[in-house]
Amino acid sequence: MEKLKELQNEINAGNRRALARAITLVESTRADHRKEALSLMDSLNTNNKKSIRIGLTGTPGVGKSTFIESFGLMLINKGLKVAVLAVDPTSKRSGGSILGDKTRMELLSREPKAFIRPSPSGNLQGGVALRTREAIALCEAAKFDIIIVETVGVGQSEVMVSEMTDIFLLLIAPGGGDELQGVKRGIMEIADLILVNKADGDLEAAAIRTSADYSGALRLLRKRKIDPESFPKVLTLSALESIGLDNAWNEIEELNNWRQKTGVCSENRKHQSLKWFNSEVKNRIIGRIEADAEITKLTTELGDAVFTGEITPERAVDTVLSTIIKNKL
Amino acid sequence: MEKLKELQNEINAGNRRALARAITLVESTRADHRKEALSLMDSLNTNNKKSIRIGLTGTPGVGKSTFIESFGLMLINKGLKVAVLAVDPTSKRSGGSILGDKTRMELLSREPKAFIRPSPSGNLQGGVALRTREAIALCEAAKFDIIIVETVGVGQSEVMVSEMTDIFLLLIAPGGGDELQGVKRGIMEIADLILVNKADGDLEAAAIRTSADYSGALRLLRKRKIDPESFPKVLTLSALESIGLDNAWNEIEELNNWRQKTGVCSENRKHQSLKWFNSEVKNRIIGRIEADAEITKLTTELGDAVFTGEITPERAVDTVLSTIIKNKL
Repeated sequence: MEKLKELQNEINAGNRRALARAITLVESTRADHRKEALSLMDSLNTNNKKSIRIGLTGTPGVGKSTFIESFGLMLINKGLKVAVLAVDPTSKRSGGSILGDKTRMELLSREPKAFIRPSPSGNLQGGVALRTREAIALCEAAKFDIIIVETVGVGQSEVMVSEMTDIFLLLIAPGGGDELQGVKRGIMEIADLILVNKADGDLEAAAIRTSADYSGALRLLRKRKIDPESFPKVLTLSALESIGLDNAWNEIEELNNWRQKTGVCSENRKHQSLKWFNSEVKNRIIGRIEADAEITKLTTELGDAVFTGEITPERAVDTVLSTIIKNKL
Repeated sequence: MEKLKELQNEINAGNRRALARAITLVESTRADHRKEALSLMDSLNTNNKKSIRIGLTGTPGVGKSTFIESFGLMLINKGLKVAVLAVDPTSKRSGGSILGDKTRMELLSREPKAFIRPSPSGNLQGGVALRTREAIALCEAAKFDIIIVETVGVGQSEVMVSEMTDIFLLLIAPGGGDELQGVKRGIMEIADLILVNKADGDLEAAAIRTSADYSGALRLLRKRKIDPESFPKVLTLSALESIGLDNAWNEIEELNNWRQKTGVCSENRKHQSLKWFNSEVKNRIIGRIEADAEITKLTTELGDAVFTGEITPERAVDTVLSTIIKNKL
């Protein structure tokens, strides 16, 4: 516990190496590490009401890294401390991936007021949310003002990230056609700002058209009663040429100030915690049962039989449940 | 078992009273009834490849009952047998609700080739899907050609219904404004046909405008690679004046024939069964734990503490899990 106390002090002092060490600790799945991680989280003052947790998603190639680098450097120039966490449920950790993240945001990673953490290994699907939630809290304890949680649009990762952040950004590229660039179900509903990147040079006109398309789709799709008039918004910018970044930040600040003032932000964080608690309890209960080899074998076999129609799904469910009860799992 | 065999024979002979009795059996939550229901389902030939399972949703007031009545009567005139199952996770069974369903489709309910079953009680949220799936299979064993599963748009009921039907219809009313009438997230993505009802008299022009709005939104929102060109479609009709019903049926048949021919329909049914099996196993595992009074009390208390920030959600999850393991649940 002495060691944890020291780690905690270092984190509170903003020591980036201590922060990195603590995140490694919360990412570990070893039982003793998990126990230490829980104690560390208990003792930290993680409730930083002034931080802004920003979720960011976008399909590969829209320029997420360039955006984070330009946007992050601008925030640092404004005197803010910026942490970047990546969430990629599909990534396998490797030296390459760590190097990759730092390389793709080279200028930002050199800044003393920046902290960049690549995506942890995604072996434990459910664990990604837990570790990212804890990493956010650690960054806040280390007095980072802005926590950017970046995700590639894989599976439910955007929804997961939106449920641990205050403001959610969707980054898109100028695109032709009348289809919304494969933007997935639900993303349009959770984005607070849609940022059309690459609004420079030859693509500027296309970016403006794309912006108009998305504005139209937003009008059709939803009307958030809770936010100030005109949110969600669509903006154009160029991360490469640093055009429109100030504007994006102003909009984020405006929305965040409004949500802070009205209490929407803290209510939102409370609901996020409660929701996560409730769903995580369920995940862990399932996880315990799925860890049983006999049950895994049985459900796989029965699943095949259900698929081919050899057995009714109802009978198959009944069989699995009977086995769980018989084995006192 | 003798009794079950007899019931099974009566169902296969298309006896509507036996069908109603069998559905009552599968709706029962009594353990001995459940066991009988499982045996009945095992022995039935429920894999009717020629039936069409049609899901239907629409907000209250769009004319679902009128549509089902007119549409059902038309199908019966074509020589088809039509079953109507209602799914309303919020309904409490009462004499009134049964009467209600038959009254609101008075002409259809008098037809010998029609079978109308009101929504079962919704006390067991998870049970609604189970019972409706079994009721569909029973109707198919009784040689009904078309099974219409109707739902009011409550919670996840549309998704649930779409996961047990072949073709999903969204019924809407002509509406003004540029917002899509509160049509919920995801519904636009699962509908195969959007039917704009009340395209008669004064509302005809508005219905055509609404149809154009939805067509535009569909173009923006999605492109199903798997279906024939031009699906999903938006059609206008008047259930009250029986205008456009034939057209709607032609489109349903066209889509269904294509999916039958290409094998998409049977693949879809297999995937639906497997998906239901996998998620139902999880639901039941959770259900067993939630039936424990101590755990329910603990999660409620900890949930409150998480909400107010007295405890980290991670610590709360750990506490619940430790209790489950300690109590050997």
